[in-house]
Amino acid sequence: MAPTTDRLLPAPPAGPGGGTGPQAAGDSFLDLALRQRAHHRFDPQAPVPDADVMAMLTVATHAPSALNTQPWQFVVVRSAEVRRAFGAATRERWRASTGAAREKSLVPGSVFSELDDGNGGGGLETAPVVIIVCFDTAKIEPAHGASSIYPAVQNLLLAAAALGYGSCLTTGLVDGSGALVRELLELPDRLELMAAVFVGRPARTLGAPRRHPAETCTYREVFGAPW
Amino acid sequence: MAPTTDRLLPAPPAGPGGGTGPQAAGDSFLDLALRQRAHHRFDPQAPVPDADVMAMLTVATHAPSALNTQPWQFVVVRSAEVRRAFGAATRERWRASTGAAREKSLVPGSVFSELDDGNGGGGLETAPVVIIVCFDTAKIEPAHGASSIYPAVQNLLLAAAALGYGSCLTTGLVDGSGALVRELLELPDRLELMAAVFVGRPARTLGAPRRHPAETCTYREVFGAPW
Repeated sequence: MAPTTDRLLPAPPAGPGGGTGPQAAGDSFLDLALRQRAHHRFDPQAPVPDADVMAMLTVATHAPSALNTQPWQFVVVRSAEVRRAFGAATRERWRASTGAAREKSLVPGSVFSELDDGNGGGGLETAPVVIIVCFDTAKIEPAHGASSIYPAVQNLLLAAAALGYGSCLTTGLVDGSGALVRELLELPDRLELMAAVFVGRPARTLGAPRRHPAETCTYREVFGAPW
Repeated sequence: MAPTTDRLLPAPPAGPGGGTGPQAAGDSFLDLALRQRAHHRFDPQAPVPDADVMAMLTVATHAPSALNTQPWQFVVVRSAEVRRAFGAATRERWRASTGAAREKSLVPGSVFSELDDGNGGGGLETAPVVIIVCFDTAKIEPAHGASSIYPAVQNLLLAAAALGYGSCLTTGLVDGSGALVRELLELPDRLELMAAVFVGRPARTLGAPRRHPAETCTYREVFGAPW
């Protein structure tokens, strides 16, 4: 039986609908998607009940996957010790990768001033929940893993926002071998690590995300032909 | 200036809200996400106006990307000739990949009987629009491409559904070198091909997607500890 929205909404959302703070669960998708934004600081005292986590993961599993193989596997981490270790490791990777990106001039400096500033400052460990997302190589060819996992991750981020939570998709923890995560979470070799998603009530309300107009990255029929 | 929903909704959606057919734009995200499903046959006569394409792409560009680099590039194809070539190539890849997956027993046979049957039968070329999704390697390290592109693709699929369209995410056209797509679309070498998304009004209303309960693929603190 398909899950119903009723089952997915154990408690009404707590706050107003502005910015990227808590939103009414009945908000339209278009409103929600245009406001969704990465959060890097959370209220460590505000609970994220199991029922809400399961609602987010149920929405995640309704994303498409290659041949409907549903290869996702989730490990939900609440342990303060493990979250601290994740926060420290993410901070380290963040500094290394932003430094590298700046050196190569792949990213203009203005981008960093627009980011919520918790990432560099260790705000991610304030998230009461971290969801580690993997795929099972027994269920899908590794080449098709990413296209079957990140749509589910986006559903997870949107569902978190719909339920009034902030979230942050990170890949720094799982880049390379992800040895720390593998060890702490006792992951078998057949699981491929894809993402760590931090979830909690936002520490502050953020403005709308900044994006270039879609027309500037869209072409008609052939590359280079302006929209 | 952030786009507003008003700007994104040039015309009211045409139909009722059941199944995965046209949905009211005001439907909640949770309702929408639980009904969203791949379509493989479309109504070739039903138009997909530019304004709707741009609405979908605007939502796509509001997904997160590594360091907010927004590395996506979209080529929107309406040419009947190119769409026929894509349909034929996708059909060929589909047959090869489902055959291979069956041989390796990665996918139970029952999965195929639940799929909308247009893919094997050539239904994808009935989609009036194909959106080719790439990322620009001048903007992002290739290793971070997938996690910055497929969330945008999922936003695109959801936005299509919110506007009453069906859609299908495929990677068969872009697997390997994607030589056919590169040639027809005159793509420069620096673009990495990630997906082809077929969009049109659904030829028929599909039931809700079938998924395993999220509890069956979720663990607590460490892999193997049941939710």
